[in-house]
Amino acid sequence: MKITILGAGSFGTAFAAHLALFGHEVKMWTRNCERAEYINKFHKNRSCFSETDLPHAVSAASDIAEALAFSQHVVMAIPTQSQREVCGKIAPLAKEGVHMLNLAKGIEISTGSLLHQLHKELCPQIVYSALSGPSHAEELLLDMPTTVVVASKEESEARMWQKIVSAGSFRVYAGTDVIGLEVGGATKNIYAIAAGISRALKLGDNASAALACRGLAEIMRFGAKLGANPLTLSGLAGVGDLIVTCYSIHSRNFRLGLGIGSGKTLKEASEELGQVAEGAYTVRAVVENAQKFDVEMPLAEAVYRVLYKNESPTKLIKELFARPLKAEMRF
Amino acid sequence: MKITILGAGSFGTAFAAHLALFGHEVKMWTRNCERAEYINKFHKNRSCFSETDLPHAVSAASDIAEALAFSQHVVMAIPTQSQREVCGKIAPLAKEGVHMLNLAKGIEISTGSLLHQLHKELCPQIVYSALSGPSHAEELLLDMPTTVVVASKEESEARMWQKIVSAGSFRVYAGTDVIGLEVGGATKNIYAIAAGISRALKLGDNASAALACRGLAEIMRFGAKLGANPLTLSGLAGVGDLIVTCYSIHSRNFRLGLGIGSGKTLKEASEELGQVAEGAYTVRAVVENAQKFDVEMPLAEAVYRVLYKNESPTKLIKELFARPLKAEMRF
Repeated sequence: MKITILGAGSFGTAFAAHLALFGHEVKMWTRNCERAEYINKFHKNRSCFSETDLPHAVSAASDIAEALAFSQHVVMAIPTQSQREVCGKIAPLAKEGVHMLNLAKGIEISTGSLLHQLHKELCPQIVYSALSGPSHAEELLLDMPTTVVVASKEESEARMWQKIVSAGSFRVYAGTDVIGLEVGGATKNIYAIAAGISRALKLGDNASAALACRGLAEIMRFGAKLGANPLTLSGLAGVGDLIVTCYSIHSRNFRLGLGIGSGKTLKEASEELGQVAEGAYTVRAVVENAQKFDVEMPLAEAVYRVLYKNESPTKLIKELFARPLKAEMRF
Repeated sequence: MKITILGAGSFGTAFAAHLALFGHEVKMWTRNCERAEYINKFHKNRSCFSETDLPHAVSAASDIAEALAFSQHVVMAIPTQSQREVCGKIAPLAKEGVHMLNLAKGIEISTGSLLHQLHKELCPQIVYSALSGPSHAEELLLDMPTTVVVASKEESEARMWQKIVSAGSFRVYAGTDVIGLEVGGATKNIYAIAAGISRALKLGDNASAALACRGLAEIMRFGAKLGANPLTLSGLAGVGDLIVTCYSIHSRNFRLGLGIGSGKTLKEASEELGQVAEGAYTVRAVVENAQKFDVEMPLAEAVYRVLYKNESPTKLIKELFARPLKAEMRF
């Protein structure tokens, strides 16, 4: 079938190649005319995976109206902080009932919104689904085994995307908990920073597992308060994404934590990284929301205080271990 | 207070040192007279952490009656497959209402029993609790940050152990789901073998996370069928222990998987390892139980078929990805 992909970054490109490899016809939208022309002429994306040949069933357009007219099935592969702007362009163009599958993860920093909230606000006519889970684009491109989950309010909608997207070594599970799925993707980077700090301080394997687990408990509490089913967060979009981020030296957020744990300031560690580590922004929005909704998130607060209040991680760890003794699961 | 520890292996020894360091008086039982005398004379355990000085508040006895008379609070640090024999010794000696905290993980291979079932059968007079979570003994001994969970049928009992055992950088959470806690510890090694196979086959980070996550989904389904709360398995005794085992090159089960994934037979890989990898036995008991209780555990079955039917992991992975498409969470 025909599928439109908005965005030509690494995940969008890998997703386009995956869909085309398994029989779909894909039109990618990129606002960059030259990049679109280059894809159409040479079947390569100059900016991402530039050595990889894309299937000929992948074409590109720089006119978003043309891209949206191509199909009623639209995949959104736009970075989180740019989605508001792109939704503004889509709103007057998208027909009633267009099926939208969002691949982005994160929280809108300026408003603290999850992405389904932003889409509901700006493009109420679309039928929204979201995809998440441990899925490095590099591996998807090579058809290495990857599992993800698609959630939509209506199970039939999630099932529809599941059938379209599952192919080869890419296996999709279906669910209906959009909030849980988006909370997982938005919050994991905070704990990847903590994992990096812990590694730099040589706190050991028990501590790494503790961070991931107690981080997960915080994510579940936070999610439950927003209306998620905590069990969603024990799935691919929660645990899965959390561990791939907390245990990978390739994760930007983990590496930011490594820098911080080695005694660098946020500014120094970010400069050394040379890119944005989203968790450094997410943690502010999450800690604010946690206070607003009265959710206990001591690890997220500790990361916030280390990054923005120059507090010592070693001192905060002592504080965390001196907290009153608790039951493991509380919602 | 006075505490008896049955067993003088690595976790028992580290636990004894931890308790003594934080003010308790500890009597360890080991059936080996010479080992007990050596501990009492030199304050070192000749067989475990032999260079480490144990606090003088740790003493040892080779007479189990003497050890049990020492305290009404007994910590069980005996390997799973020897617990039936030791429970046989305890049964006529232990008084009504003795508090027992079990540190062992695993399933009794000969019967398929979880440890609380075995204790209920043989020592019904004791009040049973179990401790689990990501806790390498080496790190506990150095008071490196470690979090675990203690579960007992009565919350007050779990809370009592929580207060006794929590100290320094060892933080204990309390719960009441003994079944969930024991299922987590018993099943994780199966998925650590799968993780090792995946690593040997260079399947990538997405695949490792998928194995841990879909393994967790199987553990939750299995646990739920036995009466566990699935949420317990998203805690320290489930996710926590699973990731510390699946992501650690030090795990025997992971290393067994590495050998199998490199084309060795179970016999060859086990010989190379030079020790027992418990998961190779557990998987048989779990797959049998899964069939009996009609629980879908395709990953555990795949590990079983690779280990005992000489099937090719690569072929099984293709089969797993070709299974009918599913919802993510099903109980």
